[in-house]
Amino acid sequence: MIRFDNDYTEGAHPFILEELVKTNTVQLPGYGEDEYCRLAAEHIKRHCANEDVDVHFMVGGTQANTTIISAILRPHQAVLAADSGHIAVHETGAIESTGHKVLELQNTEGKINADQIASYVQNHWDDPTHEHIPQPKLVYLSQPTELGTLYTKAELQAIRDVCLAKNLYLMVDGARLGYGMAAKTNDVTLHDLTTLTDIFYIGGTKVGAMFGEAIVISHDYIKEDFRYIMKQRGGMLAKGRFLGLQFKVLFEDNLYFDVSNHAIRMAELLLAAFKDKGIALKYDSPTNQIFPILEDDKIKELHDHYSFYVWEEAGDGRKAVRICTSWSTKEEDINSFIAAL
Amino acid sequence: MIRFDNDYTEGAHPFILEELVKTNTVQLPGYGEDEYCRLAAEHIKRHCANEDVDVHFMVGGTQANTTIISAILRPHQAVLAADSGHIAVHETGAIESTGHKVLELQNTEGKINADQIASYVQNHWDDPTHEHIPQPKLVYLSQPTELGTLYTKAELQAIRDVCLAKNLYLMVDGARLGYGMAAKTNDVTLHDLTTLTDIFYIGGTKVGAMFGEAIVISHDYIKEDFRYIMKQRGGMLAKGRFLGLQFKVLFEDNLYFDVSNHAIRMAELLLAAFKDKGIALKYDSPTNQIFPILEDDKIKELHDHYSFYVWEEAGDGRKAVRICTSWSTKEEDINSFIAAL
Amino acid sequence: MIRFDNDYTEGAHPFILEELVKTNTVQLPGYGEDEYCRLAAEHIKRHCANEDVDVHFMVGGTQANTTIISAILRPHQAVLAADSGHIAVHETGAIESTGHKVLELQNTEGKINADQIASYVQNHWDDPTHEHIPQPKLVYLSQPTELGTLYTKAELQAIRDVCLAKNLYLMVDGARLGYGMAAKTNDVTLHDLTTLTDIFYIGGTKVGAMFGEAIVISHDYIKEDFRYIMKQRGGMLAKGRFLGLQFKVLFEDNLYFDVSNHAIRMAELLLAAFKDKGIALKYDSPTNQIFPILEDDKIKELHDHYSFYVWEEAGDGRKAVRICTSWSTKEEDINSFIAAL
Amino acid sequence: MIRFDNDYTEGAHPFILEELVKTNTVQLPGYGEDEYCRLAAEHIKRHCANEDVDVHFMVGGTQANTTIISAILRPHQAVLAADSGHIAVHETGAIESTGHKVLELQNTEGKINADQIASYVQNHWDDPTHEHIPQPKLVYLSQPTELGTLYTKAELQAIRDVCLAKNLYLMVDGARLGYGMAAKTNDVTLHDLTTLTDIFYIGGTKVGAMFGEAIVISHDYIKEDFRYIMKQRGGMLAKGRFLGLQFKVLFEDNLYFDVSNHAIRMAELLLAAFKDKGIALKYDSPTNQIFPILEDDKIKELHDHYSFYVWEEAGDGRKAVRICTSWSTKEEDINSFIAAL
Repeated sequence: MIRFDNDYTEGAHPFILEELVKTNTVQLPGYGEDEYCRLAAEHIKRHCANEDVDVHFMVGGTQANTTIISAILRPHQAVLAADSGHIAVHETGAIESTGHKVLELQNTEGKINADQIASYVQNHWDDPTHEHIPQPKLVYLSQPTELGTLYTKAELQAIRDVCLAKNLYLMVDGARLGYGMAAKTNDVTLHDLTTLTDIFYIGGTKVGAMFGEAIVISHDYIKEDFRYIMKQRGGMLAKGRFLGLQFKVLFEDNLYFDVSNHAIRMAELLLAAFKDKGIALKYDSPTNQIFPILEDDKIKELHDHYSFYVWEEAGDGRKAVRICTSWSTKEEDINSFIAAL
Repeated sequence: MIRFDNDYTEGAHPFILEELVKTNTVQLPGYGEDEYCRLAAEHIKRHCANEDVDVHFMVGGTQANTTIISAILRPHQAVLAADSGHIAVHETGAIESTGHKVLELQNTEGKINADQIASYVQNHWDDPTHEHIPQPKLVYLSQPTELGTLYTKAELQAIRDVCLAKNLYLMVDGARLGYGMAAKTNDVTLHDLTTLTDIFYIGGTKVGAMFGEAIVISHDYIKEDFRYIMKQRGGMLAKGRFLGLQFKVLFEDNLYFDVSNHAIRMAELLLAAFKDKGIALKYDSPTNQIFPILEDDKIKELHDHYSFYVWEEAGDGRKAVRICTSWSTKEEDINSFIAAL
Repeated sequence: MIRFDNDYTEGAHPFILEELVKTNTVQLPGYGEDEYCRLAAEHIKRHCANEDVDVHFMVGGTQANTTIISAILRPHQAVLAADSGHIAVHETGAIESTGHKVLELQNTEGKINADQIASYVQNHWDDPTHEHIPQPKLVYLSQPTELGTLYTKAELQAIRDVCLAKNLYLMVDGARLGYGMAAKTNDVTLHDLTTLTDIFYIGGTKVGAMFGEAIVISHDYIKEDFRYIMKQRGGMLAKGRFLGLQFKVLFEDNLYFDVSNHAIRMAELLLAAFKDKGIALKYDSPTNQIFPILEDDKIKELHDHYSFYVWEEAGDGRKAVRICTSWSTKEEDINSFIAAL
Repeated sequence: MIRFDNDYTEGAHPFILEELVKTNTVQLPGYGEDEYCRLAAEHIKRHCANEDVDVHFMVGGTQANTTIISAILRPHQAVLAADSGHIAVHETGAIESTGHKVLELQNTEGKINADQIASYVQNHWDDPTHEHIPQPKLVYLSQPTELGTLYTKAELQAIRDVCLAKNLYLMVDGARLGYGMAAKTNDVTLHDLTTLTDIFYIGGTKVGAMFGEAIVISHDYIKEDFRYIMKQRGGMLAKGRFLGLQFKVLFEDNLYFDVSNHAIRMAELLLAAFKDKGIALKYDSPTNQIFPILEDDKIKELHDHYSFYVWEEAGDGRKAVRICTSWSTKEEDINSFIAAL
């Protein structure tokens, strides 16, 4: 069985394992106060071309989202997200468990836009009973989205402008950020994210690390006491070194970007093959998740050798499926899959 | 600098790193549903001599504690713990963040006893205004305690009897369980813990793993839907394989016990040296945390080459300090420290 | 200005004020443990023709909803409600503040049906990633709904059957229950509610009381420790006598039903007038909230003398508005309004 | 049975009932946006001699405390209180249910002092692991305390100075504030409270109202969006008029102070009698709660005709008891009690 069902089917990039082995007997303080965490943060600031950000490391995305959102909001405030957003759909109510409602906006190919946000917030304040409704205070975006699509810099700028005008915070969940940045159509840099958002994170789990998300904070209010809230949410790893050294390996040179580029190249091989064979795509994704529409019989046949998600019914005996490439995808596996198509 | 300040100063046992490297390219499903997690759970059940337990793996202790406690309690219910207990002292209010009060009982060398619990609970129900007070419903113990001491089987049995009589759940935080089980005076087995508690966990982070706690559940009510709550609390690792394979390595044979025995042997070398030199101990700990009372000058001098915690003022120009041994402590470092004394 | 904008514009039924004055100097214990609360509960049980229920009194609806929902659900569980339901729309995220997600189903004239619930729950359990999604465990209905409509006994029975089949709890928010029971088309009795739901409440605030909701619990699990959770949620009134005596007055004879009948008679006068004048209705409500569609000019003109809510745009220079009658509506005010139409 | 067991055994001051009856048919908007609430707020501002405060009305103390505390604190922050404080002892974990720990300081006759607070907070920041401990951010005082004692203006000023120096908020629970202000030894005015605290409340429930607490906010951060949080916590009464008109009656002239003075005069009759008879007092309370130490036999005998709380064991066959006077205490009942002594 060759797995294309997600981007975390294998272990970690070999360079990370090498570093693990090499540093194993070094004695270090815990809880993210070690030298590797310090170095990793420096490398990330350098790649961000911004010294004024704070960088922290957490194990996973749900932890990161609950920590960030509960660090920002007062009790009556809520977070706006696409109805396809990870926090709206796939975290077992983790955000609600911190007391906050997720206000869902209808997505278009996984995205929401500045007008939707402006209009929702304006309606809130125009409603004479707005004190009886959770107050929108934070916008949550995923870059790339859960459907593989990307916000352009112009789209992010427009959303940022609304956030500034309406007094909202803006966060970006970058669980697959590397794959977004490697996409051909991408025009958003890490530096842009430090100026266009109040906080974002750079996903490691799905981009070559064993685990880990690097949180980058621009807004002073969120910086304050962030480590307390990480600890309270169970997000401060005792042996923080393992987070530090992974991000050090990924960011001291360009490994994070190199492995992301590889995944995109693999995805493009698939896209070219789908185009050749006249196979339509459900979403126009330039990243590592692609959504071809296949015949039910073909899906059944492929499933004998390849694992991937059946995404949704597409009519006429067809279904959209999701295929993920990743840092670890082998070109020979892509070729064998294309042949099997 | 040689570090004795805690038991998580180094990486992980080499066998774990070897397994990491060896299995790195195997493709596996995520979220703890892989083969390594299955095998690790089987090995743990075997060591517990109990097939009726459920086994789950989480990254860290704070996560484990909030997940367990919020899985058990209704909103008005509270957890009884020693005032020196980890959940009472060192988790940034994580338990309160799930809505529950920690009811603190005065510790004696880190422990509480059956009479204290019985009396607290009886007073609750005798109070005509008990509906105005959080209801005690769960007892939290650490084995070994935060002060290195151990509950005997008889003490645990007495606490269990009170819990059954008063309709309380019983949980054991075993973040350092290996070191407890390796102690000369210990008479509590893993099997005992499966029958004397409703839920306990076996710490990996401090006993040779990179990270990870193995949760063992005996009580059916807690078993139900436990994975939902793990996910909600951010405690379900995407690449769950890394938890599974670590506990597989630790428990397929006796590695967990072997490394624990090593730490205890190192601690005993220290204890013998303290005895020789007439150095008193703050607590009577048979495990890997020991608390000698040293002169202030000596502490200053030792701190040039050895790191360890200053625990508390002991009068007469002396302080109690905490020295930790671990799976990774080198005998030569112990000898050098003893010489420096 | 004559107010039709809601059903709590005036004080309380005069019989309640009389009782208040008459009993004012009686010395009583607090927190709902007085004689009036006991009597009120007895009267309500008699009207329910069910001795096996528990009856409690709380000040308001948001309090009642958060207390009930947090008394029932474990942390990962969620409540299903119409997207027009009060808990989904108008409680400032109070349910989320207790940690639980409100899962919204699309309403039809304010109602949801058994098939929607069955299908949502089945989809949950069929989803292989259901542990990543809040678990539906409780169904919330309003009787009458926020749009004035009513569930028939057959509809409630069908929902109850789904709840039993799918292992769900069922609660009914009866903030306007009196007006529902007085409706011509109603076939649901208080007794039915005690057998078809696990818990429901009888609204006082909008039906002649100063304030207060009477909670009626059938399910043993919810009965247990309910007063603790009332207290924790700030819902246990110190001078509980004021809740007890109001519900005593409303239920010792038939006052609750008499005042409800009056409100319905007033609504029917309006409905007849709208029919006469060919004015369409937005929703087919048989209760005290009615939703005529009026011309914008007419609304402006009426607003000089009558207050009522503009509900929503209806096209062609018209809007749906909401007009409430209540226990205190004067027939002369209705007649003057009809004349002004 | 004559009740001295608390200060909420009777209904409400007759002037309040008269106003209720007189205004009953006036039609008003809900949720505290009516004319009576506006007037009551104005009267209170006048009595405070401070126009810059915001005034809100809530039904009860537990609601008020959870609303205030959750309005102020971020998730990792905690409230400092006397271990005898109401939030620490008698609210079923309501504060913890909002996610925050109550950090208990040892009380001296119900009070804590500036040094205790300063020292606790200093220790927090000096602790190198302070990120693992809830951050003290708010001080909760009761005036008068749960033991009837009072903070002097100098004591409050000293606590305020610490709060300003250590960046802490200060709140005062004034559930019995009237009785405190009426005490002979009191030197703290309402105006003082507006400048020495960030928020405090004036209790109505125990001082002649049916129910209700008037919240007075000085700090701008707490003012913002306070009504949202009131609504979320179930603390916004639909018929807010009932809160407004009660506080209007109590504060348009001096009724609140007059009834408080009466209660103190009644308490002083008792104090004089105890002194005469050589009966010792457990606490030196100048307010309406007094704590004589009586012989067990005498308690038993008195309990045949008078209800009061047995507070705690006092040795030698004696117990401290609590006797409350109130706005409604009759002088003849006091005299009969004194005679029975």
